[in-house]
Amino acid sequence: MVITNKEKAARSWTTRLEAKKERIESVKSLVDGVIIPTDRIVDALELLIKPGDRVVLEGNNQKQASFLSQALVQVNPKKVHDLHMIMSSISRPEHLDIFEEGIARKIDFSYAGPQSLRIAHMIEDGRIELGDLHTYIELYGRLFIDLIPSVALVAADKADRNGNLYTGPNTEETPTLVEAAAFRDGIVIAQVNEIVDELPRVDIPSSWVDFIVVADKPYELEPLFTRDPRHITDIQILQAMMVIRGIYEKHGVKSLNHGIGFNTAAIELLLPTYAESLGLKGKICTNWVLNPHPTLIPAIESGWVESVHCFGGELGMEQYVAARRDIFFTGKDGSLRSNRTLAQLAGQYAVDLFIGSTLQMDALGNSSTVTKGRVAGYGGAPNMGHDPGGRRHSTEAWYNLMTSDDPLARGKKLVVQVAETFQEANKPVFVESLDAISVKDQAKLAIAPVMIYGEDVTHVVTEEGIAYLYKSDSISERREMIASIAGVTPIGMEHNPKTAERLRQQGLVALPEDLGIRRSDAKRSLLAAKNIDELVQWSGGLYTPPAKFRSW
Amino acid sequence: MVITNKEKAARSWTTRLEAKKERIESVKSLVDGVIIPTDRIVDALELLIKPGDRVVLEGNNQKQASFLSQALVQVNPKKVHDLHMIMSSISRPEHLDIFEEGIARKIDFSYAGPQSLRIAHMIEDGRIELGDLHTYIELYGRLFIDLIPSVALVAADKADRNGNLYTGPNTEETPTLVEAAAFRDGIVIAQVNEIVDELPRVDIPSSWVDFIVVADKPYELEPLFTRDPRHITDIQILQAMMVIRGIYEKHGVKSLNHGIGFNTAAIELLLPTYAESLGLKGKICTNWVLNPHPTLIPAIESGWVESVHCFGGELGMEQYVAARRDIFFTGKDGSLRSNRTLAQLAGQYAVDLFIGSTLQMDALGNSSTVTKGRVAGYGGAPNMGHDPGGRRHSTEAWYNLMTSDDPLARGKKLVVQVAETFQEANKPVFVESLDAISVKDQAKLAIAPVMIYGEDVTHVVTEEGIAYLYKSDSISERREMIASIAGVTPIGMEHNPKTAERLRQQGLVALPEDLGIRRSDAKRSLLAAKNIDELVQWSGGLYTPPAKFRSW
Repeated sequence: MVITNKEKAARSWTTRLEAKKERIESVKSLVDGVIIPTDRIVDALELLIKPGDRVVLEGNNQKQASFLSQALVQVNPKKVHDLHMIMSSISRPEHLDIFEEGIARKIDFSYAGPQSLRIAHMIEDGRIELGDLHTYIELYGRLFIDLIPSVALVAADKADRNGNLYTGPNTEETPTLVEAAAFRDGIVIAQVNEIVDELPRVDIPSSWVDFIVVADKPYELEPLFTRDPRHITDIQILQAMMVIRGIYEKHGVKSLNHGIGFNTAAIELLLPTYAESLGLKGKICTNWVLNPHPTLIPAIESGWVESVHCFGGELGMEQYVAARRDIFFTGKDGSLRSNRTLAQLAGQYAVDLFIGSTLQMDALGNSSTVTKGRVAGYGGAPNMGHDPGGRRHSTEAWYNLMTSDDPLARGKKLVVQVAETFQEANKPVFVESLDAISVKDQAKLAIAPVMIYGEDVTHVVTEEGIAYLYKSDSISERREMIASIAGVTPIGMEHNPKTAERLRQQGLVALPEDLGIRRSDAKRSLLAAKNIDELVQWSGGLYTPPAKFRSW
Repeated sequence: MVITNKEKAARSWTTRLEAKKERIESVKSLVDGVIIPTDRIVDALELLIKPGDRVVLEGNNQKQASFLSQALVQVNPKKVHDLHMIMSSISRPEHLDIFEEGIARKIDFSYAGPQSLRIAHMIEDGRIELGDLHTYIELYGRLFIDLIPSVALVAADKADRNGNLYTGPNTEETPTLVEAAAFRDGIVIAQVNEIVDELPRVDIPSSWVDFIVVADKPYELEPLFTRDPRHITDIQILQAMMVIRGIYEKHGVKSLNHGIGFNTAAIELLLPTYAESLGLKGKICTNWVLNPHPTLIPAIESGWVESVHCFGGELGMEQYVAARRDIFFTGKDGSLRSNRTLAQLAGQYAVDLFIGSTLQMDALGNSSTVTKGRVAGYGGAPNMGHDPGGRRHSTEAWYNLMTSDDPLARGKKLVVQVAETFQEANKPVFVESLDAISVKDQAKLAIAPVMIYGEDVTHVVTEEGIAYLYKSDSISERREMIASIAGVTPIGMEHNPKTAERLRQQGLVALPEDLGIRRSDAKRSLLAAKNIDELVQWSGGLYTPPAKFRSW
């Protein structure tokens, strides 16, 4: 092969760098060093962002680059249009307004939450082009492969005059978003609450940041992981008792993730009471990946918890976390260091168990939180709620789920789904066919948006009992197991009492009484804290809940 | 529940911080600010590390904290003993000497490479206690859950006097190791090649670093990903042609990882020649996650490649990468920014295909590179070589592997295993039982150390043909497919020519002729570069290979 230099001669290999220099040059007269004046942000965005750009806008599920999103919706669509937005969470109205205004055209995201209804309509009407739905770290991975951003708009607490950033407890996904843009000659703009002379610590070095702008008000931060114990029901307490005995104790679950639900809040609040009475302290639930849940305070104070690594912070928990640094990951400044990317990685590969709840489950255990007309997306559940095929290390709980004596057999991650058989009267959780299948067509998705696949689920827990799905050796048996705990839903009605009895005998299904639990014992009096005020008391006043959670 | 303050009163929540302060205080007279004098490193380690500590020692598969590992082996085992070492790669003799000396006791690691024979003996003789084997990011995940380090010993290129670190092209896993220790009140010590007044860029902020020490010589860096095209055989070229036609073109593979082998080097060198002649430029192999392979230079120069994200750097490729910044992730200083954690994440979730080679495969496609008497570990293959259960986005290639019309059906990641039927005369690759099974007992592992599980493998390629395993609908059919391309190995001898013919007809197996490939065309003359010198020419002199690869 003769080497030809023809094409090489014609090509520049620094087009991205040149484009970046040009953009930075274009705002020279607007900026003061790396600082964009607050009142010139719209002008700056019009110069720094070009039509067709891929733009990462930081909408975490907690922290929002709210000043920058409010500025983006004000740019002139004649100057800035056809943007391809990449957002882990679509949380604020202007996140979709930019599409209505013609500023943006296409979206790739992970979670839509409060905007799930509106986005579904916009996709159906062709007002927004949907790239795809993702679990968080899947989306982050694509930032380095086929969704490399041209611009990153992020939020931090403080900056110094060089552009070093301090995120404080809310580091979340910011470093990952910044890294993808900064090291591909993209433009990185960070909104900060204030500029200070010296930062408490550096979370993101100024070498990675092009511009900072002081926001007109602090970034929005959602206390998403605060669950008021007042709303925990007796049924949730019953389920929590079943999980503790029938899963955590049975398999020796030491490391785990808990999500956002009242179900798992109930478990957290039963550790210092019910689980303590079973002598389980130190034997289960020692190492956690979860946000600083206020409902975990009693377990921490009672000495149950060895470590907690966090995806993000939680509003009101700052002082408590700082005062409990033996438990949490904190910096030299004393405040939490969260990291959504690393926490998701740990939640996938390094914990024994993921537990989630669902709004719909089919007869084989496939589940989804999408319901008709909504494109809600996923968040972190698909990542943590499957058995990672790359896992090679063994823990007691993982090994305990091995069911074969094949010489190549391996253990399994525990993936638990907790559901009440009905969401509300006449709305069964167990259904023949998931709404996700119709949403697939409505939202023009390539595949149906399943949150957790049945083949990954090892345990299903309802108020009726636990189905140990990992023990099933056929699809028909799996179906029988789910039916036997599905109550009077359409799926549950299929079940045959004789079959159910056989499944109990074989240890494939357990009812509360099989676990030594009396339904009448499942009372709110078991909760270590019954309301937010008691959580504050447990914390010795270190937890300062947001106003909306205060009743006093 | 009455809140009791008894236990709370008795407990300190800052034991880790106090311990850290004490350790730092103990070296006050030795150090100058954050700088440990080079000749006092052994004294410093004896004070900063305590018996039983969990110590992360940076042994990447490329960059080694070689000065620190050489210092660690010199500490007095009466002062420092029973360490629990955590290392992604065991590469250097002193990595095991510390166990012989009684300084360390237990190891958790990912990859042993050149030390795989010695470590196997040491485990068998009880001279080292094996925690577990891991794929890289699985091990990193555990650093935040149940293997939180007390001390991190890492390597960087340069530091400033405040302890900010510059890693240059070899960032690799350093930020992740540092983050785990720094934010849990662990001690972070970084060896650097030099201290400078101003860093070209900051890769790790000084807020995360406790001490720096100038090494007596630059850290060891292994050119692990350099493959001399002279050693590529005609059989590897034939296999590369089959992969290009029968897999990359057939499924439309755009994003992918290539590893270290000569098989994949051959593919890289056929892109500007054979694949170009098929009109595939821009249709396949555009977005990569791989290190800066010298053998990718001709494809880059010919305009095949849009982007490359790297796990680490590659010795000799620094200038080339800096001059091709439209392709690579680079910093403001112009040099590569690699990141093993993020590249592994992208390699798991965001690419169409992983391709690897193996030393042994059983009849069902399970494969392993462990052979009798060796505990080699895994590296990144288990992470990238499986279908990630959390993936939800669709690409052409992924969707193309969907074989069911179930409403919940989804696509699949392509996991390709390339193997010649024999490693050498009388050493078949295809075997009834993997050596991994006996290594399990020898090394007292919980499970057999399988590199890639058969259920995850979608394609097997030998010099005989391709087996499209993802299409198989039964274990027996999978076995037939593998047998039909396993040549005259024990597994191959099982195969029945009539079955093979049927499998070809059904498109389950393809021979070269089925793909329009003449075996006689598979010649070295097809390679875009036939030796290292031609790679240098392609690079316009920007690639400067290490001396051992130069023949001139």
